[in-house]
Amino acid sequence: MKVILDGMGGDDAPAEIVKGAAEASGVIGEHEVCIVGDESVIEAELSKHAHDRRRLSIIHAPDIIEGDDSPVKAIRRKPDSSMVKGLEAVRDGVGGVFLSAGNSGALVGGSVMLLGRIPSIDRPAIGSPYPLLEGGAALLIDAGANSECKPRNLLQFGIMGNVYAQTVFGKEHPRIGLVNMGTEKGKGSALLKASYDIIGEASEKLGLKFVGNVEARDVPVGICDVIVCDGFVGNVILKMTEGVGLSIMHLLREKFTEGFIATIGAALLVGKLGELKKMFDYTEYGGAPVLGVAKPVVKMHGSSNAKAVVNGIAKSIAFAEGGVIEAITEHMSRVADIASNETGGTNEAEMANAAVGDMTHVAKEEDDGADRV
Amino acid sequence: MKVILDGMGGDDAPAEIVKGAAEASGVIGEHEVCIVGDESVIEAELSKHAHDRRRLSIIHAPDIIEGDDSPVKAIRRKPDSSMVKGLEAVRDGVGGVFLSAGNSGALVGGSVMLLGRIPSIDRPAIGSPYPLLEGGAALLIDAGANSECKPRNLLQFGIMGNVYAQTVFGKEHPRIGLVNMGTEKGKGSALLKASYDIIGEASEKLGLKFVGNVEARDVPVGICDVIVCDGFVGNVILKMTEGVGLSIMHLLREKFTEGFIATIGAALLVGKLGELKKMFDYTEYGGAPVLGVAKPVVKMHGSSNAKAVVNGIAKSIAFAEGGVIEAITEHMSRVADIASNETGGTNEAEMANAAVGDMTHVAKEEDDGADRV
Repeated sequence: MKVILDGMGGDDAPAEIVKGAAEASGVIGEHEVCIVGDESVIEAELSKHAHDRRRLSIIHAPDIIEGDDSPVKAIRRKPDSSMVKGLEAVRDGVGGVFLSAGNSGALVGGSVMLLGRIPSIDRPAIGSPYPLLEGGAALLIDAGANSECKPRNLLQFGIMGNVYAQTVFGKEHPRIGLVNMGTEKGKGSALLKASYDIIGEASEKLGLKFVGNVEARDVPVGICDVIVCDGFVGNVILKMTEGVGLSIMHLLREKFTEGFIATIGAALLVGKLGELKKMFDYTEYGGAPVLGVAKPVVKMHGSSNAKAVVNGIAKSIAFAEGGVIEAITEHMSRVADIASNETGGTNEAEMANAAVGDMTHVAKEEDDGADRV
Repeated sequence: MKVILDGMGGDDAPAEIVKGAAEASGVIGEHEVCIVGDESVIEAELSKHAHDRRRLSIIHAPDIIEGDDSPVKAIRRKPDSSMVKGLEAVRDGVGGVFLSAGNSGALVGGSVMLLGRIPSIDRPAIGSPYPLLEGGAALLIDAGANSECKPRNLLQFGIMGNVYAQTVFGKEHPRIGLVNMGTEKGKGSALLKASYDIIGEASEKLGLKFVGNVEARDVPVGICDVIVCDGFVGNVILKMTEGVGLSIMHLLREKFTEGFIATIGAALLVGKLGELKKMFDYTEYGGAPVLGVAKPVVKMHGSSNAKAVVNGIAKSIAFAEGGVIEAITEHMSRVADIASNETGGTNEAEMANAAVGDMTHVAKEEDDGADRV
């Protein structure tokens, strides 16, 4: 398996990305890493670190898609960017998975435009590993690609998340939960009620473990393994976890240094706090799969360091080798009557989503100007 | 000011509610508390606590709306319930504010049905005090009454929240923030973009301090004083705060008891952890105002204890005496061109909300069967 790695995307690219690739080359076994980016820049970075050249190669791409570039336009206007070249390498079979810490919108949009969707999936979604306080991680899907969703989108997220959690997290029967305002059936908006119904129906057909509605409060304690929600709610869940977590850490530090006795206590607890912090550490869990596109693509955290890159490479191989895309396609074919664009959904839900969602936008621009790509 | 208190609503009613009323009677000054509930039950509870009878009275209401009653039906079918009798007491001018720890849906629905809306407000919302880690609180609105919203709903929430934060929290120029997936203008769905625009426009007219989009991550650190979002997102923010906070506490306790050294540290830090816990304590911040109805109504936490009741009574007096409803009415009249039902909103937003939202549902049932109330 050759992992195609975007050498230029991310806050600390290319230095940390290349450092991570160099480290990975020593532990990657029979696999390979191919870094996409400006060749001379990548070589200069590589020269700073020990690495196994038999396991490392470079695809030259002189251009960079910046974080604030308009996603779809950037993909079209920067054909020599590391992101476009990297996606093309996966499209053309040079590599088996593309990994990037760059512009999320461009990565999702570019994946749809250059790799295409799994035919039965309406909108790709980002699945984000959600670290559980008791250890391990759940998969939150969608983490931000689709701010408004139809019931069949949420169902598709559940099906995709289930396959990923099985394959990459090694959970035999992942518990799939739908984020709602209460746990009872019949809670929430018309959209959520319809989603509940069709996820339940499809789960019966596919033998999935749908645990019904879950409350946000119970997400951190691991109420389910696949957390299904629209991208807006997913974003709020991830950001609140970060915000509340960091605020409490900050406050603890403050409290610990108030007064002599507390300071002694704090000194004794430094090690324990370190362990606590590690649990929130995204670098532990690899990247976030872009699920629903026809080839494996992984989004890494924007501020990925070398360690995150090493873990991201390892997980992306599990993703690419695990047959995730084939399994999603197979699952979807068995619930086409419920889950697919042609037949599924409800009128209310259709109306509720008439406002243009993010991915709809991407798809539309794509239709309008695919010839310009 | 006579505060009308639902003696029968809440997990620990009537015991804790009556205990709180008894305590309040001693510190309430020239004000009064009137408990609504089964007279003999209330008297029996009152007899257990010292109280100032000159400041305490009872309205007999033999029936109770339970937590799992269907909100609108319960209001109609239980005319002798403490909630209906209490709302009627405020409607008829017996008291100046109604306070209940009972069924939220019934309280919001009943308030709309029995007290009516402020004419220019489409949908009432629940404003929940959000404790900030640095001390004090912001007001999150909507906390769960409306799971799907139009831009003008969000604008109305901002206007109402601003007035409440000024009057009850004593903030001169509350910073109003719109919860979004990023801080840049133009972020998020069509609905949020339209909301951003009209909140900005109205804020200029009214001289409000709109700080634009805020990310969920920055809510706990006090990025704004009025947190504007739909009720679904509001629910997720509140529940995530609770879930992440409790999980970390749990984990800290676990870590603290691992090994001898850490145990010593923990013993020294017990007091500090207590302080931290207090910051999450909802009993400190009084109740959540139901904003947008024509008279002051306050929802208390379902598990309110006596202390929460005492604080709830104090804050509800500030709410009722502060002219909040008059100020909202005045503000709304100055932005009728932007914020009102007849003229505001966008087509996309209208479509996006075609699915029946919670409050729409209440309003509809109300129209269908108002004569039966």
